[in-house]
Amino acid sequence: MPMTVINSAANDNIKRWRKIAENPREAKKAGFTLAEGIHLAEVIRDKKPAVRSVILRESRVSEEVAALAEEVARATGAKLLTVADKLYDAVCPVENGTGIMVETAAHFASRPVRPLAEDALYLDGVQDAGNMGTLIRTALASGVRHVAASPGSAGFWAPKVLRAGMGAHFSVQLYDNVTPEEIHTLFAGRILAADARGGRDLFRTPGWAQGPAVWMMGAEGPGLSMRALSAATELYLIPIEEDCESLNVGAAAAVCLFELRRRRLLAE
Amino acid sequence: MPMTVINSAANDNIKRWRKIAENPREAKKAGFTLAEGIHLAEVIRDKKPAVRSVILRESRVSEEVAALAEEVARATGAKLLTVADKLYDAVCPVENGTGIMVETAAHFASRPVRPLAEDALYLDGVQDAGNMGTLIRTALASGVRHVAASPGSAGFWAPKVLRAGMGAHFSVQLYDNVTPEEIHTLFAGRILAADARGGRDLFRTPGWAQGPAVWMMGAEGPGLSMRALSAATELYLIPIEEDCESLNVGAAAAVCLFELRRRRLLAE
Repeated sequence: MPMTVINSAANDNIKRWRKIAENPREAKKAGFTLAEGIHLAEVIRDKKPAVRSVILRESRVSEEVAALAEEVARATGAKLLTVADKLYDAVCPVENGTGIMVETAAHFASRPVRPLAEDALYLDGVQDAGNMGTLIRTALASGVRHVAASPGSAGFWAPKVLRAGMGAHFSVQLYDNVTPEEIHTLFAGRILAADARGGRDLFRTPGWAQGPAVWMMGAEGPGLSMRALSAATELYLIPIEEDCESLNVGAAAAVCLFELRRRRLLAE
Repeated sequence: MPMTVINSAANDNIKRWRKIAENPREAKKAGFTLAEGIHLAEVIRDKKPAVRSVILRESRVSEEVAALAEEVARATGAKLLTVADKLYDAVCPVENGTGIMVETAAHFASRPVRPLAEDALYLDGVQDAGNMGTLIRTALASGVRHVAASPGSAGFWAPKVLRAGMGAHFSVQLYDNVTPEEIHTLFAGRILAADARGGRDLFRTPGWAQGPAVWMMGAEGPGLSMRALSAATELYLIPIEEDCESLNVGAAAAVCLFELRRRRLLAE
């Protein structure tokens, strides 16, 4: 089969991908994002989300990667497009990529008609892409399949967030632009705030894992905003050593979400 | 007092700082590293580790930062050096720094004569600087004050690791170039491996927090090496959801170290 190679920077696909790669907000606007690398391509092949194109670098791509690109295209019914190296590198959201990208839907969950009796994670102003992706991954690993974020947080589907999420995006319901006041319209149950400034001891306080719970986590540095703290029904403190100010938000979320999981598993 | 400004790229200080900023291995070789930013400068002012110089950017520095630089110099007895903007930016390990750096000792703990009956964290091949720093910070927060790393791990004192550690470096004993076989000569007690491929359930297995423990964590992707697994006395698995492959190493360490802390606190 003769392969057509995209060679022109004026090509409409190239222009669209470049926007997504360069502007973290574009994924939401365009409805599509760029998933770079072998691992994400494999997850997409298996989970089959909506895919617009599978993008392969023209040269310096291993046979395995080329075969994977064909598999993803077949599994999702999407076009496989080969792109000249220079153009590929210009639209690739990471340096030294492996030569495969998938243009996949930036899917947001719709707001429920009635609040869901489900566990959730709420992120208040988390702006670092790596942290954001890791938080989605940690939520899924802990069994929490709903993640909501405040208007000031990083976009869930920005390519760097997607990459750090390691595929968790495709198994979690994502709600963006959720104000703290809106949380109780999305989720029924306790709203637990993790706050380094005070609250009850996470480990020593019984009962908080009964029924569905939303864990709220604030940004590195400022922590939870006053609006988020006001929306919480309960305040908890991770008992850290006195000569240490705080935990990284990813570590704090891991501690809270897995303490929820531990309590759930042991109650079974 | 007339201020002398370092203006020449040929200045010995500049040459030394540039090496530290550019090569992550240089901190160990030189015995000094560069701590960038207000937070680290404050920790250094309070903890008073050995400091060689306090480095201030000549212009676009707030009054608070300039005052802090004088405080750090006074508290540690180090020279305060003002550096022309271009040169400062060339040796600063982060982009858009706040204009203050401290050249502080890269201090490693010496090997104990007899194995220590202390909790510890062992890092096997963790290469990402951000992860490495966060792990040191999480260890301190959980009360674990000894961190050892394998020969293939990132350098503890590389400027980016120091920055991600948020000052925890100055409260933790750091041991580098520790092979898995050497762990038991440093620490007396259980050697616990966290492994996604199998092991006993972290939450459901009793007893492992009795007596001192070393938690071993592997690199993102490969996990613990065979050598590290062979050195472990016990193997544990964090019970994550089935459709999620693994946790980020920072999140996994947070779960294991805070489960240790929880058990210790509740046993008191």
